[in-house]
Amino acid sequence: MNKRVGIFDSGLGGLTVLRELRRTLPGVDYIYLGDNARTPYGSKGESTIIRYSRECAKFLVDQQIDILVVACNTASAAALHVLKEELTIPVIGTIDPAVSSALASSRNNRIGVIGTFATIQSGAYQKALSARNTGLTVVTKACPLFVPLVEEGLVSGEIVESVVAHYLESIVTEDVDTLILGCTHYPILLEAIQEFLTSRVKLVECSSAIAETVKGLVENPIEQTSGMGSERYFTTDEVGKFTHLATLFQKGSAIEAAKVSI
Amino acid sequence: MNKRVGIFDSGLGGLTVLRELRRTLPGVDYIYLGDNARTPYGSKGESTIIRYSRECAKFLVDQQIDILVVACNTASAAALHVLKEELTIPVIGTIDPAVSSALASSRNNRIGVIGTFATIQSGAYQKALSARNTGLTVVTKACPLFVPLVEEGLVSGEIVESVVAHYLESIVTEDVDTLILGCTHYPILLEAIQEFLTSRVKLVECSSAIAETVKGLVENPIEQTSGMGSERYFTTDEVGKFTHLATLFQKGSAIEAAKVSI
Repeated sequence: MNKRVGIFDSGLGGLTVLRELRRTLPGVDYIYLGDNARTPYGSKGESTIIRYSRECAKFLVDQQIDILVVACNTASAAALHVLKEELTIPVIGTIDPAVSSALASSRNNRIGVIGTFATIQSGAYQKALSARNTGLTVVTKACPLFVPLVEEGLVSGEIVESVVAHYLESIVTEDVDTLILGCTHYPILLEAIQEFLTSRVKLVECSSAIAETVKGLVENPIEQTSGMGSERYFTTDEVGKFTHLATLFQKGSAIEAAKVSI
Repeated sequence: MNKRVGIFDSGLGGLTVLRELRRTLPGVDYIYLGDNARTPYGSKGESTIIRYSRECAKFLVDQQIDILVVACNTASAAALHVLKEELTIPVIGTIDPAVSSALASSRNNRIGVIGTFATIQSGAYQKALSARNTGLTVVTKACPLFVPLVEEGLVSGEIVESVVAHYLESIVTEDVDTLILGCTHYPILLEAIQEFLTSRVKLVECSSAIAETVKGLVENPIEQTSGMGSERYFTTDEVGKFTHLATLFQKGSAIEAAKVSI
């Protein structure tokens, strides 16, 4: 029987992680849950985010998953330690994989982190980076308008450019050479961000590092390299709204989803 | 005993309505509920919005309110008919008061409506306007980035100007003379919107019309004109996050709130 990997996100951003998992581990069964009825998490309080994350995890554990991926930086920052403590299966968040990639990339030890208000305020990235290298300078910036821009389908043009410049000015002046995209929506804005920062700044997203981490937990080489893994999608909001926006993240391929109460 | 008026909104926008109610009816007791843990409603599906609206209304009815104000255009558009049918107290939404004001204002019978995706998609404003005057031309536009801008504290400057221009270009070219601000967040952006549209377009918000409607239901003249009405605030998210942002809507005056589960 294939391994079964559960993935949740506050909404759709985690689909960027699922895409990378599918590419890396095609023979695994994936179950995706988007908590679209309560999205976004990034503007909400820590205790609220922990409660929601527990409810999402419980739904997926009830589906008999073998591995849980918290494909949401906000939920990882607030709730990963709680889920790891409470669950008996492996729990993979976004932060450690992204931190490893960033450390491998930086030459000048000046690393930037952007994310939601809750992710940045939690200090989770700052702590994880400092724990691995005390000599780093870490520059952080919450970018609350990036998620609404992506969900509005605005990924280029004048508005996007002015919002990107508004948030990332300090990343330029602080001379970071590596920037962690600490939110699974942000890869959708990758081109606009890269253009503003120029090629001097390496952009690090978590999805490929997460996929490598999960790969290390799946021992059967058939599942790693081939096979007929399945995908099932669940959302807490209406199915039509989920599938419509999901095409933006799935680069056009249509998906089917079911509505659940959690 | 003072009349008790319950007000709910998906988050903080309804505070613009509460401010106007307090000004118009100072002797009434107000209970405000912000469903901040699930905000925003405007990007979600109709069935989800109806469920949330029912839960908010139930909490307030359990507080023994005499009148319910749905101070959220998205909830009014999706759920007002449900709440009116299910509750035995008067239920006031945002749409009919705003429509009355707009009809009184327009000279050329060309009226614009802006709101969240859900409000515009519901067609509630279009229907309410046409029911009162079949000779109208109604121009609508969903403006999903306005709420995130306000909640980010961005109410002027280059980004706001470009977002306002992006959404309101069609309002200008369609020659409307009256624009309904069909979301209780939008009055915070009033100056930027008015500057773009110039004084040729009259902006209509719902709060003063709602206050007049509620005043018609409060018969005791002492409550209407003076007195020591109280205010209580509840939020479904963390209290600190609520009170911090609430100052933006309350023009700086500090408030106390309590967290509730609904």
